[in-house]
Amino acid sequence: MTTNDDAGTNVNIDIDRLLQRIKELGRVGALEGGGVCRLALTDADRQGRDLVLRWMKELELRISIDRIGNVIGVRAGLEDGPPVTIGSHIDTVATGGLYDGNLGVLAGLEVITTLNDAGIETHRPVAVGFFTNEEGARFAPDMMGSGVHQGALDIDEMLAVRGIDGTTVLEELSQIGYAGTIPVGKFRAHCYFELHVEQGPVLEEAGIEIGAVTGVQGISWTEYRITGVSNHAGTTPMRLRHDAGYVAAAIAVEARRLASEFGGNQVATVGVNELRPNLVNVIANQALVTVDLRNTDDALLNQAEARMAGFVRQTARAEDVNVQTRTLARFAPVEFNAAMIALVEENAKTLGHSVRRLPSGAGHDAQMFAPNCPTAMIFVPSRDGISHNINEYTEPAHIQAGANTLLQAVMTQANSGNSTNA
Amino acid sequence: MTTNDDAGTNVNIDIDRLLQRIKELGRVGALEGGGVCRLALTDADRQGRDLVLRWMKELELRISIDRIGNVIGVRAGLEDGPPVTIGSHIDTVATGGLYDGNLGVLAGLEVITTLNDAGIETHRPVAVGFFTNEEGARFAPDMMGSGVHQGALDIDEMLAVRGIDGTTVLEELSQIGYAGTIPVGKFRAHCYFELHVEQGPVLEEAGIEIGAVTGVQGISWTEYRITGVSNHAGTTPMRLRHDAGYVAAAIAVEARRLASEFGGNQVATVGVNELRPNLVNVIANQALVTVDLRNTDDALLNQAEARMAGFVRQTARAEDVNVQTRTLARFAPVEFNAAMIALVEENAKTLGHSVRRLPSGAGHDAQMFAPNCPTAMIFVPSRDGISHNINEYTEPAHIQAGANTLLQAVMTQANSGNSTNA
Repeated sequence: MTTNDDAGTNVNIDIDRLLQRIKELGRVGALEGGGVCRLALTDADRQGRDLVLRWMKELELRISIDRIGNVIGVRAGLEDGPPVTIGSHIDTVATGGLYDGNLGVLAGLEVITTLNDAGIETHRPVAVGFFTNEEGARFAPDMMGSGVHQGALDIDEMLAVRGIDGTTVLEELSQIGYAGTIPVGKFRAHCYFELHVEQGPVLEEAGIEIGAVTGVQGISWTEYRITGVSNHAGTTPMRLRHDAGYVAAAIAVEARRLASEFGGNQVATVGVNELRPNLVNVIANQALVTVDLRNTDDALLNQAEARMAGFVRQTARAEDVNVQTRTLARFAPVEFNAAMIALVEENAKTLGHSVRRLPSGAGHDAQMFAPNCPTAMIFVPSRDGISHNINEYTEPAHIQAGANTLLQAVMTQANSGNSTNA
Repeated sequence: MTTNDDAGTNVNIDIDRLLQRIKELGRVGALEGGGVCRLALTDADRQGRDLVLRWMKELELRISIDRIGNVIGVRAGLEDGPPVTIGSHIDTVATGGLYDGNLGVLAGLEVITTLNDAGIETHRPVAVGFFTNEEGARFAPDMMGSGVHQGALDIDEMLAVRGIDGTTVLEELSQIGYAGTIPVGKFRAHCYFELHVEQGPVLEEAGIEIGAVTGVQGISWTEYRITGVSNHAGTTPMRLRHDAGYVAAAIAVEARRLASEFGGNQVATVGVNELRPNLVNVIANQALVTVDLRNTDDALLNQAEARMAGFVRQTARAEDVNVQTRTLARFAPVEFNAAMIALVEENAKTLGHSVRRLPSGAGHDAQMFAPNCPTAMIFVPSRDGISHNINEYTEPAHIQAGANTLLQAVMTQANSGNSTNA
């Protein structure tokens, strides 16, 4: 038996075994044409959980299930203490892919399996976890399990959440047999790693294999409900119009303009635009439009929000329409740990992979750990940048690169700061 | 018995009688809360036709019903020849008002009744007609009856038109008993008058009682079907987007900008804007948007169309999206007869009414007559500019002013260019 200090760079994950597990988990809730539907706490989710739990047991991990259904398996270290933790989720959206979330959990199992097979012991324990309802597709909010796990969300409030089908989280947790007894808030990680597909096109476009994720963008969602006056498109002079549709379009164009002006990591999207009565020759009296603003810098995000709000006020006044504004979501940006980011970057380079630092545009369980322990994420390229889609795909070579980078980073952390050698 | 030459300005329509007829016709197909539904060639339309036909018979008009169901009643003149014709329609949209179309027909009957009651004979015959399916709400195109009547549309093609409920014009004409035997294309009008509600806010806003309509705006409807790439709003950098929703919004903002730049009678409306998948955090891969451009000047309308087409090409290229363009409608502007417009204007003034020249932004039966005989329209104000709405309303005083202006103009034309006096 040996420790990472000398053996680390000689071990590699088994890509075929990892792909086999991804494929096998992907059969649970499989959709016609590819992809999966394993909405949180459904029977399909239970079957997926049962499968991963079986694998955890085969690896002889010490398993705990907490009150919100988070499942953690711990591989003992030579010393006790907070484990180096690898995690993600196995729930999916209704038309999900095989990689989003699943890759992070199964790559964690693959790291453990590799350590076991190579007979490598680590100073610190190594844990693998999957967290309940990361997607938020059935029960809002998303990142529910990791949020409760890390103290950002209240356990009792979350258990009472009612989903899109009227059931509560507690009812469905009990129904699938994953309402655990372990209290939340007790678990402490030494540090947290999450391997995830990028869900965007940046790495693929640049031909880069590994993303060292610097943090998660702050998110601001605002809904504008515009009320104007419906009128005849032919008989109403331009100066007498109160066109809700025009104001909605102006907001969408301004969102794009703001993103260009701000540059950097600022993105802006108008994904919803609905007009009433939505007829060719009738000026719209109702429009519903949403603005999704994201930035890694909270001060800039605040500025973008203020600028958009000012534009909406001014445009609504000029057109003499009423606008009801509603905040749908607001999350501050999260910055990952500098040393952890560097660790990912260095290990990727050492393994001969191209690597780039980039922020995550999507939310992840990792952001819930970031305030409490050193946290980092590893991204691998998403083909065509797509996810939440049955065509989601990441090349085996990229999965292999990501999982090996994870393995090395985990081994480094699991043996760091220790005086003892086995 | 006297002729208009001396008695004209002393006769007036009876506003109470006219309002009574408007109210009575409005009971046929009445909707809860006001307004009517008399879609063309439905049972409600038949009942409305039967009522107006009964009134025509009571006025001892010589009635003819042609193959497309247009009904014309002629009051004999002292001489034979083409009648001074008053017309409009009595079909409505599904949520129509009591005035659109109906006012023109019933004011025509009121003119005849007034002439009869005053014992006034005219040199030329005076006719009142209502034309089949002006609204086009059940069978496309609109202005079908007058179009066939004046030779702009082919009778056999129109009889074969299938409506929104799968029936054909001929079937439904026969079913309601209005498939007449009179061939179309035989009727010649000396001139044509149509009194109509403005359906816009111009007269009301200016505090003007009578509009002397100069013509009908040309209409250009274009549909743009935009295909981009659906992607994550957080993870997709701005420069890698192919956002169909953005292009749709840019088109709507450009339409407004073009209308401002052109000024004059140019109007531009984007009434339809639909996104797919229409989610807050997903870049739209599909957008459907329509542009309604109108101008009284065909050269300017052509310019506006070309400018919009250029903008769409350029924006689609910059965003790298595909755009399918489809022309939904294109009608050239119609100019009414200068002497007829002046006649309306002078008679309104003589009666002490405020009058303004303005173009019509909506299509009317009158535009089908305009190429074949001197034609003019009289507008009266629409409260809040609304029509095609159960709240459509025009004040009795304005109806009275419009009908009296019509009466005087008809009498002038019915006695003009004649050497004989009765």
